[in-house]
Amino acid sequence: MNINLEDRFEQKFIVSDEIYQGFILLFKDKNPLHTDGAFAMNKGFKSCVMHGNILNGFLSFFIGECLPQKNVIIHSEEISYKNAVYLYDELIFTAHVTGVFESVSAIEFKFNFANSDSKTVAKGKIQIGILK
Amino acid sequence: MNINLEDRFEQKFIVSDEIYQGFILLFKDKNPLHTDGAFAMNKGFKSCVMHGNILNGFLSFFIGECLPQKNVIIHSEEISYKNAVYLYDELIFTAHVTGVFESVSAIEFKFNFANSDSKTVAKGKIQIGILK
Repeated sequence: MNINLEDRFEQKFIVSDEIYQGFILLFKDKNPLHTDGAFAMNKGFKSCVMHGNILNGFLSFFIGECLPQKNVIIHSEEISYKNAVYLYDELIFTAHVTGVFESVSAIEFKFNFANSDSKTVAKGKIQIGILK
Repeated sequence: MNINLEDRFEQKFIVSDEIYQGFILLFKDKNPLHTDGAFAMNKGFKSCVMHGNILNGFLSFFIGECLPQKNVIIHSEEISYKNAVYLYDELIFTAHVTGVFESVSAIEFKFNFANSDSKTVAKGKIQIGILK
């Protein structure tokens, strides 16, 4: 394995209109929190809140495309959504390797998404397997 | 709250070509496991494995659209991917309420995705908040 304990990764993601609209088109989640600005503001948010699972799509890209090896598969994910993400937010994603389990060919990462105010919007961990 | 302990929900999801291609278009995860059938078969799978986070998009739909109330927000998710999902798989999603925490307006669900062979392909839990 060429992924080692404490390795760190960083990636910028932008919640573009294409991603927001595309996510709604694919998964049909038109909950008013995500689509009705007045509803969202009435609940104390600045404007429509982006779907938390858009960040999970970014996790998919990170694991599938940003690691030094491609023979990987996600085993599990845990994510806590801490603060609202809004349209056009630029998110800095950071991850570091917290476990390398050679015997079962598995690797664990902890990750964090922060917005441009350096506020954590989500964090969690992912465990992946290395495919032989 | 009109969601109660032990309430059960069921929903069918199909991993259509539109969803598979759309997910790749949105999130750019073209890892060979998902896009190269020969690679996937060489790793022991039947064909290209669908992105696990497609199921998280289905979770978004479930929480946003299938509950008896719309004033909800996802706080956290845990998901374990147990078996591969393939293109055109029909998945039966089941969820039940495992916790209702009135004092903090939160609800916890456990969920399961099973394929048409009744094999669990993923399972986990979601905690949501009820927005006042």
